[in-house]
Amino acid sequence: MLVNSKNKRKAATEQVSELTTGRLSVYLRCLNQLEADGVETISSQTLAERFHLNAAQIRKDLAYFGEFGVRGVGYYVKDLKLHLRQILGLDRKLKVAVMGAGNLGMALADYPGFRREGFEIVAMFDSADGKIGEESRGGVPIHDIRDIRKVLKKERVDIVVLAVPAEAAQHVLDQVAGSGVKAVLNFSPGTLLVPEGIKLKSVDLTVSLESLSFFLAQGDPTS
Amino acid sequence: MLVNSKNKRKAATEQVSELTTGRLSVYLRCLNQLEADGVETISSQTLAERFHLNAAQIRKDLAYFGEFGVRGVGYYVKDLKLHLRQILGLDRKLKVAVMGAGNLGMALADYPGFRREGFEIVAMFDSADGKIGEESRGGVPIHDIRDIRKVLKKERVDIVVLAVPAEAAQHVLDQVAGSGVKAVLNFSPGTLLVPEGIKLKSVDLTVSLESLSFFLAQGDPTS
Repeated sequence: MLVNSKNKRKAATEQVSELTTGRLSVYLRCLNQLEADGVETISSQTLAERFHLNAAQIRKDLAYFGEFGVRGVGYYVKDLKLHLRQILGLDRKLKVAVMGAGNLGMALADYPGFRREGFEIVAMFDSADGKIGEESRGGVPIHDIRDIRKVLKKERVDIVVLAVPAEAAQHVLDQVAGSGVKAVLNFSPGTLLVPEGIKLKSVDLTVSLESLSFFLAQGDPTS
Repeated sequence: MLVNSKNKRKAATEQVSELTTGRLSVYLRCLNQLEADGVETISSQTLAERFHLNAAQIRKDLAYFGEFGVRGVGYYVKDLKLHLRQILGLDRKLKVAVMGAGNLGMALADYPGFRREGFEIVAMFDSADGKIGEESRGGVPIHDIRDIRKVLKKERVDIVVLAVPAEAAQHVLDQVAGSGVKAVLNFSPGTLLVPEGIKLKSVDLTVSLESLSFFLAQGDPTS
């Protein structure tokens, strides 16, 4: 049974795109909200209506990972939340380090959403004398970026967040690659050569602004 | 002809999802890169291969807005770039104001990607005495948040970025709604009641981290 379940999970994983994991994150947010409101069970239909989602898509996304719905009841909010946290790997604490202690790095180190979902920001790194040895408002210590490999290993960091200037990003990424860290969330603009063994996900904040720009351009009759 | 083209554009708009506008933004990034590299024409196939995209999807996305490809040539990089900028509403300068001059607000006000794509950050707002009257490192003035409507109107702001603490977000959003601004990019966590006439897009940075967490959980044989 254990082997079967593991195989099923493995096969499912290969079909799951980043878009799906994004939706699983959204479902998890909704379930957090429902739990806070004291809701114990919910149908995919009601879930979809309440949060402006697609009921068929919810059922399809969840079906990849097993049978979570109960006929005539829908989903148990608490159970489904636990399952989703497990699928997303949030059932263990993940340690995160932030490269760059500028405004963006500082904002990310203290971003309340990270801690709430179980990510622990354990270290920041910078190259400026005035910053090394200091800490973020939330108490994250700032290390010398030259100690990057030593600290990442010692703190057993799982995910690195790149918030350094574009011209430093490739060098820092190459340093990270030798430390055993396998996942990087990149906020630096520009193209990066991704070292083997690293999964890199880039966040481009401009894309969100452009989607609003599109809305304004197409929706505005004077344009 | 003009009327026809406008009608076609209107009809197309209604079918275009936020996912599509996100992809148009990605194509624009690729074209910027190609132009910088001196590439003058490119086929959808080569564009797809070079940037790990889907050629059929590129053709489909662009076909919504007109016939941009030339048989036997592909796309003219410069022309397609101009068309995409026009479709995304980036052919005019868009004025942006940032609410909240904490670390996140400061980082967003000076984010190099915004300026590069034609967004002009004209104002920041905060409620702290020590910040009002100061400016960001890049020179964006910080106004008293009580002057929000006056300044937004005077500066003819198109898009507002919300980077205030969760507990202040709803109040600030309500103030924005009365100022004539129609588009808001929200970085505050938590649920917001969106006033009528406002298009709100929320950015949840945790979703990106969770996608990496999913990768680590499913890819790691010990999990």
